[in-house]
Amino acid sequence: MDYSDIIEFHGHECPGLAIGYRMACAGMAALDSIRSEDEEVIAIVENDACGADALQCVTGCTFGKGNLFFHDHGKQVYTLYSRTTRKGVRIVFHRKGAPEGISEDRAAFAKWILSAPEESIITITEVIISEPEPARIMKSQPCSLCGEQVMESRLEWVNGNPLCIPCSAKKKNG
Amino acid sequence: MDYSDIIEFHGHECPGLAIGYRMACAGMAALDSIRSEDEEVIAIVENDACGADALQCVTGCTFGKGNLFFHDHGKQVYTLYSRTTRKGVRIVFHRKGAPEGISEDRAAFAKWILSAPEESIITITEVIISEPEPARIMKSQPCSLCGEQVMESRLEWVNGNPLCIPCSAKKKNG
Repeated sequence: MDYSDIIEFHGHECPGLAIGYRMACAGMAALDSIRSEDEEVIAIVENDACGADALQCVTGCTFGKGNLFFHDHGKQVYTLYSRTTRKGVRIVFHRKGAPEGISEDRAAFAKWILSAPEESIITITEVIISEPEPARIMKSQPCSLCGEQVMESRLEWVNGNPLCIPCSAKKKNG
Repeated sequence: MDYSDIIEFHGHECPGLAIGYRMACAGMAALDSIRSEDEEVIAIVENDACGADALQCVTGCTFGKGNLFFHDHGKQVYTLYSRTTRKGVRIVFHRKGAPEGISEDRAAFAKWILSAPEESIITITEVIISEPEPARIMKSQPCSLCGEQVMESRLEWVNGNPLCIPCSAKKKNG
């Protein structure tokens, strides 16, 4: 996916998307890894801002594939890890080399980020992380109240009856 | 984005992706809405399985845009809501019309889902939901320990000093 595909996926162009793109590309290069078809690469993102959409596109670590982990720290930090090589890298966006006041003009800022020398915006360090378990496909069974199918790990058992989380909550609240 | 673009984004083809694609397309048609460039449409997904990647592609409700809400219920249920028309729809996947045993063969199952009549696999109902606040861009300031920038709403103040969540946790754990 090239940058125009990424803008299409995100829905619009913005500085945040450019930041995530540079971080994700730098991280994948440092890992010497190709885009993850399944769960070969995992990503831990410390924010869910625009750049995380670029990360999904570049790395193949996506919300629906079980290899994107969200740690809600409000930091422009991604950690990428390859299950193949067991190498991990932590990518921090800092924009220390940004020209004074450039972020006031969003279009100019986005353009500058896309072409800035890597060391002006990003620090990468190797890190050791404990490898998370791969995602599992689980069976489902119906909630005994609403009848909708529920993944077994998300069922709550009340008086011997399987309930989905919303039905269980309704029952608790009378 | 057509289905081949969605497979490329997800990284592989599978029944789950086909399920999410049919659900998301049916929901967008029921809303009479176009793909969300910004936060015009919001999605509440009750699982983070493969289909959620198709939903991101079809609806424009993406992890990085603040219009994708994850309720971890383990159910094949999406709710879509248009901020423009204030209409909401709840889409439930049930596969009640599936031929016996078809899900044993993943490729055949995925193919069948893509062409099955909508009423054989999906129920859609109109719903009323309370509209969530749009995402906000917040300022950041440095953590007083690690020096990394942190979104103000995620700072923890300890003895008058701003700390990021990981540094604050390390401090608490000695």
